[in-house]
Amino acid sequence: MTKIIMHGCCGHMGQVISGLVKEDSAAEIVAGIDMADNGRCEYPVFTDIDTCDTEADVLIDFSSAKATDRLLDYCERRKLPVVLCTTGLSEEQLEKARRISGEVAVLRSANMSLGINTLLKLVQDAAKVLAEAGFDMEIVEKHHKLKLDAPSGTAIALADSLNEAMDHQYHYVYDRSQRREQRDPKEIGISAVRGGTIVGDHDVIFAGPDEVITFSHTAYSKTVFGKGAVEAAKFLGGKPAGMYNMADVIQAK
Amino acid sequence: MTKIIMHGCCGHMGQVISGLVKEDSAAEIVAGIDMADNGRCEYPVFTDIDTCDTEADVLIDFSSAKATDRLLDYCERRKLPVVLCTTGLSEEQLEKARRISGEVAVLRSANMSLGINTLLKLVQDAAKVLAEAGFDMEIVEKHHKLKLDAPSGTAIALADSLNEAMDHQYHYVYDRSQRREQRDPKEIGISAVRGGTIVGDHDVIFAGPDEVITFSHTAYSKTVFGKGAVEAAKFLGGKPAGMYNMADVIQAK
Amino acid sequence: MTKIIMHGCCGHMGQVISGLVKEDSAAEIVAGIDMADNGRCEYPVFTDIDTCDTEADVLIDFSSAKATDRLLDYCERRKLPVVLCTTGLSEEQLEKARRISGEVAVLRSANMSLGINTLLKLVQDAAKVLAEAGFDMEIVEKHHKLKLDAPSGTAIALADSLNEAMDHQYHYVYDRSQRREQRDPKEIGISAVRGGTIVGDHDVIFAGPDEVITFSHTAYSKTVFGKGAVEAAKFLGGKPAGMYNMADVIQAK
Amino acid sequence: MTKIIMHGCCGHMGQVISGLVKEDSAAEIVAGIDMADNGRCEYPVFTDIDTCDTEADVLIDFSSAKATDRLLDYCERRKLPVVLCTTGLSEEQLEKARRISGEVAVLRSANMSLGINTLLKLVQDAAKVLAEAGFDMEIVEKHHKLKLDAPSGTAIALADSLNEAMDHQYHYVYDRSQRREQRDPKEIGISAVRGGTIVGDHDVIFAGPDEVITFSHTAYSKTVFGKGAVEAAKFLGGKPAGMYNMADVIQAK
Repeated sequence: MTKIIMHGCCGHMGQVISGLVKEDSAAEIVAGIDMADNGRCEYPVFTDIDTCDTEADVLIDFSSAKATDRLLDYCERRKLPVVLCTTGLSEEQLEKARRISGEVAVLRSANMSLGINTLLKLVQDAAKVLAEAGFDMEIVEKHHKLKLDAPSGTAIALADSLNEAMDHQYHYVYDRSQRREQRDPKEIGISAVRGGTIVGDHDVIFAGPDEVITFSHTAYSKTVFGKGAVEAAKFLGGKPAGMYNMADVIQAK
Repeated sequence: MTKIIMHGCCGHMGQVISGLVKEDSAAEIVAGIDMADNGRCEYPVFTDIDTCDTEADVLIDFSSAKATDRLLDYCERRKLPVVLCTTGLSEEQLEKARRISGEVAVLRSANMSLGINTLLKLVQDAAKVLAEAGFDMEIVEKHHKLKLDAPSGTAIALADSLNEAMDHQYHYVYDRSQRREQRDPKEIGISAVRGGTIVGDHDVIFAGPDEVITFSHTAYSKTVFGKGAVEAAKFLGGKPAGMYNMADVIQAK
Repeated sequence: MTKIIMHGCCGHMGQVISGLVKEDSAAEIVAGIDMADNGRCEYPVFTDIDTCDTEADVLIDFSSAKATDRLLDYCERRKLPVVLCTTGLSEEQLEKARRISGEVAVLRSANMSLGINTLLKLVQDAAKVLAEAGFDMEIVEKHHKLKLDAPSGTAIALADSLNEAMDHQYHYVYDRSQRREQRDPKEIGISAVRGGTIVGDHDVIFAGPDEVITFSHTAYSKTVFGKGAVEAAKFLGGKPAGMYNMADVIQAK
Repeated sequence: MTKIIMHGCCGHMGQVISGLVKEDSAAEIVAGIDMADNGRCEYPVFTDIDTCDTEADVLIDFSSAKATDRLLDYCERRKLPVVLCTTGLSEEQLEKARRISGEVAVLRSANMSLGINTLLKLVQDAAKVLAEAGFDMEIVEKHHKLKLDAPSGTAIALADSLNEAMDHQYHYVYDRSQRREQRDPKEIGISAVRGGTIVGDHDVIFAGPDEVITFSHTAYSKTVFGKGAVEAAKFLGGKPAGMYNMADVIQAK
């Protein structure tokens, strides 16, 4: 039984994860941490992280980048493995996460879904065959109308994955309307569509002579991200210090 | 039997159209015009437009914007109905086309395919219901890696069609990577994907609360544009002076 | 303010609709009816339909076909307009619904979403142009792995819509694996994909020479069906006896 | 320089391949074989296979299953490596091909495109993660209205590939309209859409809880199959006896 502390327990994803863990016989949330207690959690909630000394195997973080620095200090001090799901971390925060991973297990992925993490690997295998054979690579992502940033972190992660497979020879292009020239073979175009309540669609396109291969991922609800976080937490409890990602979780299954 | 003069007869589309007309019992190419005769046309070819006085009902133009001015003068002088398929015309050339349509029938569309021209109408009907109900509208187009301009003229025509249906309240957005803000309800995002030999894909997306409707068009070869041009020519022969488009051709069938 | 009785108030869709109406300033649920009261409704719940005499403008039914007969009797007796959202009604029940529509307003649609009901109309317009021009029509639907029937009622409704536009000349084909012959031009192929938790995807495909047009609808949650039901209820309150459907609701907006 | 004999040189694919080889500096067609010489080949054409004794490294076969038996005898006798692209071979013919592969190199694939052959491998990797995690697997293929068989050989090959990765525990389902029950977790649904001139689309769908991953392949022209055949021929020339497939060609690049 993996004992979990839920950081950001009163937010939307904190509630989703609480519901998922409740139905999981191999995990349990033993404490929550959030700025204010909304009274809907069935476990003790601490509004000051430093007062939470509940014994646990792992912490899941789905909160705000503003809370990340104190959180990392807390996990380092308690030697508490941490699943970092908060997005929009600064370079400094990512560096800090890498630093504390010398002392404690840290897991971070741009996207927690099993599907996207499987694709991150498979599109690399595809690139090595298809981009090598002269196919062009493009990414189209679609998200809801409230999303502020574009392209999505997941789209960038997919592009980075392609680029890594091709020895970092590619650059990214976000807008073709301001120029009048042919596509550079070493560019990855990334387009961002926004509208309605789309949870998150990602297409990775390989376009070659007279054939096109597309890898598409559609998320139907944010629950997929919660499920990945719970799987990651169960994997990370008891692991030695180090930097992990969802690929490790998937491989271990 | 519609007698056609093919302007740009030795180019790729000129050859496609020659092949199509050969199998069409209701049309015939009686002369071709091009800068140089490649010797593959089964009809007389004139390398100077002003020397071509073959009797005809209509002219199809699939050449280069550089030749358009002389072409329009020619059609006006001969009172010869003209199907303008050349893309990339300047505002001055479009204005000249409108002007001579006071004297002779002129037909022009951003895209000659039956499919796109049907969509141009249907997305307007959809916009009046869905955009009115708060759905967001986005367009994604995909073309081959050699295409210089972006977004495609057809994507712009689709956006204009949506915008016209909504009383021109919308503006177009081509790049969201340089800002960090929510989508404006009155924006139409237009994304351009480039790769391989994609002939031309267009998606018009209506994204609302928990549902998305997409109208997609895929062209498998340039033959669709040729077919549209031949249909247009058969329609336009004998028509009175005026400005026509493919919607008129479709309606007349 | 439209006063609604919710039939099936304790089921999943009853709860979804209760949530939607709570945030709608133009409607209110004044009573619920269900076999057992789960205690989560903020309005009186009647476990025997015949004891419910709360004054109301309209009833929304999202329950089970087993309860439909008594429900129709109840609405007829009280002259209470009824929005029938329950699926899987027998031919007898549909006939009964038509019969009581001589006395009271009855609204029924195979699918309550704004998107699908817009498509039902637009694919008819498309068929009149494209099928007339020789394009073949096919439908592919995708639903979750628990769905018992195939193809979906919505896919059948879309096919019926196409067929109606083409003077009922078409027949439907569900399986091509048992024969070895060319497609009949007058057939509409309907394919059913099942897997995971897919809420409901429908593609209507028009495939012609070298071009394909696809109309796609994706539902991301069952909320879209609830929203349609609430819109329908607000429309139906106060309407004279007769048979209505979602197209009437959309047209009236 | 690979010397190729083209079997079926006057057919559509024979002509496509002749055009491709003409522009390939590493290959050359030294002779053609077909029932009748259409006079359009730029190399000697033999109308009786047994009279063709032109020296060559490999033979490409894109003809008819009726000609396959004599062809296999010919290649065995001459110890001439053979790329078998003809579809619709009987079990006996496939067995014969396997038998002669003890004497000479034989390459056969259900689909010659680089894209499909890359997918055949990647969907196996995906299945091992996703089907293992409870995702359902489905295939949808689309082809032109003239295609006689359904589902396509490529769709079956993709299903076999998935099934092989899952220890052959799955069975295939082609029609769900005749039953009223939930999907079996161990079934792979295969749907066949027919219409227009669609060259060949294949979707492999993994549908899980709240997320769907789709691998799509679209062929825009039959040229992709010709290209694969030429690559295969260049690979196979000089290879020792044995059974090969396109995966070997891709791996060797």
